[in-house]
Amino acid sequence: MGLFSKPIKTLDDLFVHMLQDIYYAENKITKALPTMISKATDPQLRQSFEVHLQETRNQIVRLEKVFQMHGQEVKGVTCPAIDGIIAEAEEVISDSGDKEVMDAAMLASAQAVEHYEITRYGTLIAFARQLGRNDCASVLEETLAEEKATDKKLTMLAESKVNRMAA
Amino acid sequence: MGLFSKPIKTLDDLFVHMLQDIYYAENKITKALPTMISKATDPQLRQSFEVHLQETRNQIVRLEKVFQMHGQEVKGVTCPAIDGIIAEAEEVISDSGDKEVMDAAMLASAQAVEHYEITRYGTLIAFARQLGRNDCASVLEETLAEEKATDKKLTMLAESKVNRMAA
Repeated sequence: MGLFSKPIKTLDDLFVHMLQDIYYAENKITKALPTMISKATDPQLRQSFEVHLQETRNQIVRLEKVFQMHGQEVKGVTCPAIDGIIAEAEEVISDSGDKEVMDAAMLASAQAVEHYEITRYGTLIAFARQLGRNDCASVLEETLAEEKATDKKLTMLAESKVNRMAA
Repeated sequence: MGLFSKPIKTLDDLFVHMLQDIYYAENKITKALPTMISKATDPQLRQSFEVHLQETRNQIVRLEKVFQMHGQEVKGVTCPAIDGIIAEAEEVISDSGDKEVMDAAMLASAQAVEHYEITRYGTLIAFARQLGRNDCASVLEETLAEEKATDKKLTMLAESKVNRMAA
């Protein structure tokens, strides 16, 4: 969450702050994915990153809709968590020499990103409901369902890749 | 993963690197939890952080065992992901004026930490199995089961807290 953002006094402030946090995170992910697409060797992995890039763009549009529904300016606040997860991913990409190992490392990083998003959207939906914003919760639930599906796909891909590497 | 760590060429290198990464993360968590314990207002939340601190210390001992089983020196490498997640948590703690809101924010941060750990231990277990280290996988599974139980406890606590705040 951002260093120079509005002080958080109420559950509504916290909800808006977390919206800004995930808005920053989703935008950061759209910047990181093209590198991962270009570095991925496995065609299924590359395709899964490509699909996720398109989904992430839609998720950003949904977040903008939620900001507007809640009468808030569309804006992001620096999210050190996603910055850290992506810094770690970029480092692994530059570290790994072997293509198969690099794919496995990128998959692990993508799973860490998904888990971060799943926990954040889960919290946002709970807060939205308690603030009486079931309309916002419904929009956020569409994204949560997508993130969970992506996580499942990545897990299956990871298992089949690791099995192949060990074979 | 650390800037000055060994280059990752094989699945074994990646496994050891991720062990070092989570070893750093668990140690960082033991340093962050005492602040969260002292700032938590809700007695159940405080108690859950206290239990998790003790569990984390046991998880560190388990990781040391896995390093030894795998013939590796016990060491950590900087993990920007956990650094980011904890920086975000610390910021929320200093931002939030209202005790109830601060508890909700700390709970959300603790859930983000748990999700990071769950994804990392899941990957480590998959890698260990593929490396033929079922012995290491078994030790890591004990920790994964604990992390999942903690996540469930935090989710239940978050739901009951948010319900009370909205009441």
